[in-house]
Amino acid sequence: MYSTETEVRVRYSETDQMGYVYYGNYAAYYEVGRVEALRSLGMSYRSLEESGIMMPVLESHSKYIKPARYDDLIRLQIIIPTLPTSRITFEYKLFLEETLVHEGSTTLAFVNMETGRPMRAPEAMIHLLKPFYEVK
Amino acid sequence: MYSTETEVRVRYSETDQMGYVYYGNYAAYYEVGRVEALRSLGMSYRSLEESGIMMPVLESHSKYIKPARYDDLIRLQIIIPTLPTSRITFEYKLFLEETLVHEGSTTLAFVNMETGRPMRAPEAMIHLLKPFYEVK
Amino acid sequence: MYSTETEVRVRYSETDQMGYVYYGNYAAYYEVGRVEALRSLGMSYRSLEESGIMMPVLESHSKYIKPARYDDLIRLQIIIPTLPTSRITFEYKLFLEETLVHEGSTTLAFVNMETGRPMRAPEAMIHLLKPFYEVK
Amino acid sequence: MYSTETEVRVRYSETDQMGYVYYGNYAAYYEVGRVEALRSLGMSYRSLEESGIMMPVLESHSKYIKPARYDDLIRLQIIIPTLPTSRITFEYKLFLEETLVHEGSTTLAFVNMETGRPMRAPEAMIHLLKPFYEVK
Repeated sequence: MYSTETEVRVRYSETDQMGYVYYGNYAAYYEVGRVEALRSLGMSYRSLEESGIMMPVLESHSKYIKPARYDDLIRLQIIIPTLPTSRITFEYKLFLEETLVHEGSTTLAFVNMETGRPMRAPEAMIHLLKPFYEVK
Repeated sequence: MYSTETEVRVRYSETDQMGYVYYGNYAAYYEVGRVEALRSLGMSYRSLEESGIMMPVLESHSKYIKPARYDDLIRLQIIIPTLPTSRITFEYKLFLEETLVHEGSTTLAFVNMETGRPMRAPEAMIHLLKPFYEVK
Repeated sequence: MYSTETEVRVRYSETDQMGYVYYGNYAAYYEVGRVEALRSLGMSYRSLEESGIMMPVLESHSKYIKPARYDDLIRLQIIIPTLPTSRITFEYKLFLEETLVHEGSTTLAFVNMETGRPMRAPEAMIHLLKPFYEVK
Repeated sequence: MYSTETEVRVRYSETDQMGYVYYGNYAAYYEVGRVEALRSLGMSYRSLEESGIMMPVLESHSKYIKPARYDDLIRLQIIIPTLPTSRITFEYKLFLEETLVHEGSTTLAFVNMETGRPMRAPEAMIHLLKPFYEVK
């Protein structure tokens, strides 16, 4: 299983008048998380799009456990629970210090930008991820 | 069951470089939807907060069926499937003309802003909603 | 001089923890305003882009006079002070009831999307705007 | 004169369908910049608000020189050109490698959150900034 971490500091623009991170802004944190997960694996999502593959989101789920606030430094754990096929799932756990404050997951497709059709995960991605899912 | 509709036009700021509505922006559409649902019922979410009750989101789910694009006029159907208790669920269906392009749901709590503690749905809300859930 | 009006209701997602509209969100209101200004003139910005012309912003200025708050219904006046050349300027005045709460302006270019080069305002736009700038 | 630098990586959520950073999102970069400028000076904007002082924006100006794109790592220079009085001005220069792509400035007030009235810059801030403006 592939798992990595990154950090996100809450911006003022991301708060709302409750004084919390607006619930819709976690989606952008997820995005930062999965891009950094791919980068730490050795892949650039930007290059992927430049090579003609895009990854639209099909489903997302969010669970708001405790609020995050302005200037909080969120530790964001990103997990790819299974090897991607024609879809890839990312799970997210957000921590403030040791406290889990938010959980989410997204499922994305791989789409050939030229034809607009779904496709399987690119070989390069499978190649990089495979070692993390091998039975020992 | 209470159900109502409103419209949202996609803003340029809500698109991303795929040329679609950014997946995180549907949460703001849901919010517009539930505020308008309460308004059409005769309640103002603003007044609710001014009276000391806030409604933080506990969970949300989204299913991206087809993309919505810049300047699209989305027909947004909002459903409250059951009478609220200490929680309220809203379901959302987004249509472009007759085509369902997106589905979502959110569950929110009622919180007493002074004590920070959960509470039951305000009587006024129950009173307005009750007729829609009575067995005929 | 061409001038028109539209309305924008402040969304929860647009507030920040001061309880005001976040200062960066006025730019999206301007955008709604200029798109509606073009629409009421008989032009669609979407069609303009589909025909290969885009209008990137070159400059913007904002003056925050009084705060706008959640659920406020803003009356947004949009003015095109002069006939466009290779650039177009829009001015914005935002009112809550009769009170001016915000002023802004943006200058945009016309760019041929195929060549990436600046161009003059499309003839169709000049044609529609010209009657508003004629000396009587 | 006080000047410092920070970095911001462009998020997917910040792009629009032109494939550029949406023009309204630079305001959030400015905000990140001025918060980091205060932090590197030894002040926390969060603590400032917690102590009852808020800094609403009065004016902002933006000049879009070249587009920034998804995943670009922006080098953000923040300058406080003069010692604050009852107002403070921040200037921003955004670079991609050595190329200046964007310039902006914002003027903010100091407001006593309890009374809602303008006030002078807090002594602690003046104290930290003063050495940078002394004639040598």
